[in-house]
Amino acid sequence: MNPETFERDALAWLRADRSLGAGELARRCLGLLSDFALRHPAGDAEALGSALESLAGRMAATRPSMAPVQNLLLRWRRLVTEPGMRDPQRLRETAVRGARELTRASREATSGAARSAASTVPSGATVITHSLSSTVLTLFRLRAGEGVRAIVTESRPLLEGTSLARELSKLHVPTRYITDAQMGVFAPEADLAVVGADSVLADGTVVNKAGTRLLALAARDSGIPFYVCCESLKYARTAPGEAVLESMPPDELDAPPLDGVVVSNVYFDLTPPHLVSAWIDENGVHAQRPREAGPTERLARDGGRPGTD
Amino acid sequence: MNPETFERDALAWLRADRSLGAGELARRCLGLLSDFALRHPAGDAEALGSALESLAGRMAATRPSMAPVQNLLLRWRRLVTEPGMRDPQRLRETAVRGARELTRASREATSGAARSAASTVPSGATVITHSLSSTVLTLFRLRAGEGVRAIVTESRPLLEGTSLARELSKLHVPTRYITDAQMGVFAPEADLAVVGADSVLADGTVVNKAGTRLLALAARDSGIPFYVCCESLKYARTAPGEAVLESMPPDELDAPPLDGVVVSNVYFDLTPPHLVSAWIDENGVHAQRPREAGPTERLARDGGRPGTD
Repeated sequence: MNPETFERDALAWLRADRSLGAGELARRCLGLLSDFALRHPAGDAEALGSALESLAGRMAATRPSMAPVQNLLLRWRRLVTEPGMRDPQRLRETAVRGARELTRASREATSGAARSAASTVPSGATVITHSLSSTVLTLFRLRAGEGVRAIVTESRPLLEGTSLARELSKLHVPTRYITDAQMGVFAPEADLAVVGADSVLADGTVVNKAGTRLLALAARDSGIPFYVCCESLKYARTAPGEAVLESMPPDELDAPPLDGVVVSNVYFDLTPPHLVSAWIDENGVHAQRPREAGPTERLARDGGRPGTD
Repeated sequence: MNPETFERDALAWLRADRSLGAGELARRCLGLLSDFALRHPAGDAEALGSALESLAGRMAATRPSMAPVQNLLLRWRRLVTEPGMRDPQRLRETAVRGARELTRASREATSGAARSAASTVPSGATVITHSLSSTVLTLFRLRAGEGVRAIVTESRPLLEGTSLARELSKLHVPTRYITDAQMGVFAPEADLAVVGADSVLADGTVVNKAGTRLLALAARDSGIPFYVCCESLKYARTAPGEAVLESMPPDELDAPPLDGVVVSNVYFDLTPPHLVSAWIDENGVHAQRPREAGPTERLARDGGRPGTD
């Protein structure tokens, strides 16, 4: 294996990906790091450790607004840079086992968050959501067959809502599919609103697909609760003022080119904590974003490198 | 002319039209009624009057949620059913002149409303709007060249926002074009929000393109004023609970057909008065929807038929 080629390809893939949620993206990174550790030609532990540390850090820096990428990778990096590791073979085993265990823990946290969220949805309730969240989809999977109904937005520009509607159709969850603009019409028909998150910032602000803030506003004005549901790995230490909202290519909107007209395609918006009824993670339903949860924070407290998230 | 054919064609056109705003739709109806009066073969005033009265009433009933259609047509009907009209030729002249005068008054009211609204927009201000309103477009025309900027939503499903962006480009108004879902991202960048209306209900509730309520919510949460701007002919006597929100064909969303998934395409939403900073019409800027304005109300007070709006 050529380490430079491997690194370049991995970072290029990570930079370009737009199909995976933040949690799955982080798990794929761990898979690549595990591969990298196994196949890296370094003969001594110090050179190998430094190569692993460098790739994990560069991956984390590539998707700064994806909290799980930050949290999982920095946690893994902590494992492979433990002082006193002299045997390259032992380091490889640590790297592979660490990636496997963190991946498993992350998957369990995601299902745990969905289970916690499912407990807030009464039988027969109508749930309105925005965009496609694997945690919210798992929630519907857990409650399908109990008369739970869904209201799903199309989620322009890439229409992730159609993928969610397709899955809900397979689960036989009765679903209403609407334009994003109709959220204000249909929020009053729902009993509650639930969304996933790409990150939850230090003050509880939710970073999620653009339109989430509008759903939260419509929910509050319609008198229904608005829940955010995600594994605690998505908790970041970032303040809202420091959040980077990734933009995607404007041509996804298919707007006609016009002089003096700038097309914007900001993918995420910020839903401030005053619009959130509860933060739901694998540890339960919380009236405030829990302070204790991000592994990055634990790392920092343990004397490891503070997270850059 | 065959009066039955004329009536049938006129009502079919009116029922199907989706391209015109409520005000323009009402003015086209007056044009048709004027034609109908001129070309109707009736030899006596009573038969002619009854034919005119009937077509105007049926037109008004065809678009119940369009306040100007109600208001202008019922006002015109009042003119052609004045008691004591014995001469069919004089009745024809009254019908034609009435249609012409009401059309002119309606156009003047629309420009007057845009002039009133323009007075609330400081030089250099950024204005966010939703969908396409001819009154809001006139406002931009009045203020183009004074550093006023626009933020325009695409307005799914039929993308009226692209027509507005095209006109703003011609006017050299610097414009940002966004998905409806990005309203929450960009409302904080604007100094004020302005929309037109299809109707304004008795309590001040705004009936306008779906998504308007979301813009009003985002405006309030972002601390910017939200103005509705339309001629007073759009004031209806309807209460919000009685409002009919027209739906259009679901296939406009281009969603894949899926078992158990219902596609909704409700065209209008209701923005309640607590989200409206001011109601702007040809008579000025009002902190509440004026009680005095709809010609229907005046008709009712004059002893004419009460409006069915």
